[in-house]
Amino acid sequence: MDVTALAQSVKAGERRALARAITLVESAREDHRAQARALVAEVARNGRQALRIGLSGTPGVGKSTFIEAFGLLLTAQGLRVAVLAVDPSSARSGGSILGDKTRMERLSRDPLAFIRPSPSQTHLGGVARRTREAVALCEAAGFDVVLIETVGVGQSETMVAEMCDLFLLLLAPAGGDELQGVKRGIMEMADLILVNKADGDLKPAALRTQADYAGALRLLRRRPQDPEGFPKALTVSALAEQGLKDAWGEMQALAQWRRDHGHWDRSRALQARHWFEEEVRQGLLASLTRDPLRGLMQKLGTDVGAGLRTPDEAAGEVLALLGR
Amino acid sequence: MDVTALAQSVKAGERRALARAITLVESAREDHRAQARALVAEVARNGRQALRIGLSGTPGVGKSTFIEAFGLLLTAQGLRVAVLAVDPSSARSGGSILGDKTRMERLSRDPLAFIRPSPSQTHLGGVARRTREAVALCEAAGFDVVLIETVGVGQSETMVAEMCDLFLLLLAPAGGDELQGVKRGIMEMADLILVNKADGDLKPAALRTQADYAGALRLLRRRPQDPEGFPKALTVSALAEQGLKDAWGEMQALAQWRRDHGHWDRSRALQARHWFEEEVRQGLLASLTRDPLRGLMQKLGTDVGAGLRTPDEAAGEVLALLGR
Repeated sequence: MDVTALAQSVKAGERRALARAITLVESAREDHRAQARALVAEVARNGRQALRIGLSGTPGVGKSTFIEAFGLLLTAQGLRVAVLAVDPSSARSGGSILGDKTRMERLSRDPLAFIRPSPSQTHLGGVARRTREAVALCEAAGFDVVLIETVGVGQSETMVAEMCDLFLLLLAPAGGDELQGVKRGIMEMADLILVNKADGDLKPAALRTQADYAGALRLLRRRPQDPEGFPKALTVSALAEQGLKDAWGEMQALAQWRRDHGHWDRSRALQARHWFEEEVRQGLLASLTRDPLRGLMQKLGTDVGAGLRTPDEAAGEVLALLGR
Repeated sequence: MDVTALAQSVKAGERRALARAITLVESAREDHRAQARALVAEVARNGRQALRIGLSGTPGVGKSTFIEAFGLLLTAQGLRVAVLAVDPSSARSGGSILGDKTRMERLSRDPLAFIRPSPSQTHLGGVARRTREAVALCEAAGFDVVLIETVGVGQSETMVAEMCDLFLLLLAPAGGDELQGVKRGIMEMADLILVNKADGDLKPAALRTQADYAGALRLLRRRPQDPEGFPKALTVSALAEQGLKDAWGEMQALAQWRRDHGHWDRSRALQARHWFEEEVRQGLLASLTRDPLRGLMQKLGTDVGAGLRTPDEAAGEVLALLGR
């Protein structure tokens, strides 16, 4: 593969080249990995930056409806929007988020939009690497906004938050005053909480939920990267296309404030650092599946299965050999 | 700490000793780690085995009500039941599952039951290690059933399934014919799907949901470890305490069949092997946070943040140094 030519085409904003480039970074083949690395290094030189927005929400809150309506709002303003998905739970046999492009039929036909479903990867680390590289490719291709969707439970939020400039939490209206089992840790990551489905019968419940979360957010410790009033809880209706413009206005205001006060650069530096650390971790783990370690792991695994060694003893042997 | 004495007390079934032992395996301190390892090796010698049951379900399906009712059913039969929780999403600032023991007030007061909330750990790997060791401790302490609860999205299911003899998926009745966004991968891990809340107004919906899942399960490829008719979908009502005895009957029948046909031992061998592999992975990753690597990671991380090196270049340096 001609990596330099592919990099040129990506930087020229050619969608087909971008899709091919992402397929390359998704590949687990060693030779592809080297090419992917060269490609990402090559495209990163043009220094373009998109607004990286992470979006989390459990199934049923209307994530795809929101992404479609929000994406169309942005493209109507002439902005180019890329949508990527992170769904580690799809590891075993293919997931559902963004799996079906017809979920966002209008947005996927929009020439200013680019939608890429979650890849099937066995490890969250593999998904993380691919997503970081895909974000870099989308930025180089001139997208203004890169939206990274993830499911609303587990460690994938933390991972997505570590590669984003803004983090949105999408919620459905809750019955009563329950806070929907949203983990405090996830709330603490959110820059903006959007209570969706604020339309029709659900509108009163949505407003109550929004008030509940606004109250809960006020109880959190103020973060240095937030101006007065943030993080914020708003209501939106993706279906009725209401509140989206306001939400986008808040995102822009927050991003601008962070740029003006040095937090943007600090966040980007931290994002790069997380990337580095994750690469080291994944590289170390990958060595276990390659010779000569692979053979040893298999032999000891068999011994452990047969009860000849305890898991701990066998692990100690491998680690001692590696000088760890 | 006198590890041998603690091991004796654990094996004698003393709850307070068990609680202290689990606290020890949860500790991240290096000296505690060595003691924990010695403790687990020591207690494992008595060779007792519990039935390890994994239980997954998203927030709102009634997991704690189910665990309480199911646990009380077992203790009423004279069985000793330990309940552990795996909640990686609690990493950042403490989670909610089993965090509040009052959720299972009756069970927690039962002398035959032992309930242990999820520890706060930064990594899923750390949670995995602690849980495996806690399971080993509970088995040595003579518990008949160890129930491992996890939340219903993400990779924690896979992790729990890798340390269990049986895996249950708890669901709520769904509206219409939607399959609740349950990932195919999770369905494929389940030995038993329990549709909870099959009482009152929700009963018809629960029956429909059960039929939907029974149909979906029939479409999956038959697994070697299943007798005819498994995996199975049933309805239960934890609140009305209905269907639990049947569900327990199915679990026992399945476990017995697997014992009789060699699958139990094979599964235990595989569980031990997963444990070994995870120990190696965690050991490798832990070395990054200890000197001399820690210093290098920090220096390169700073360089990456400052843009002096790309994440990939810096990672390459570390990995080259380690001969990976």
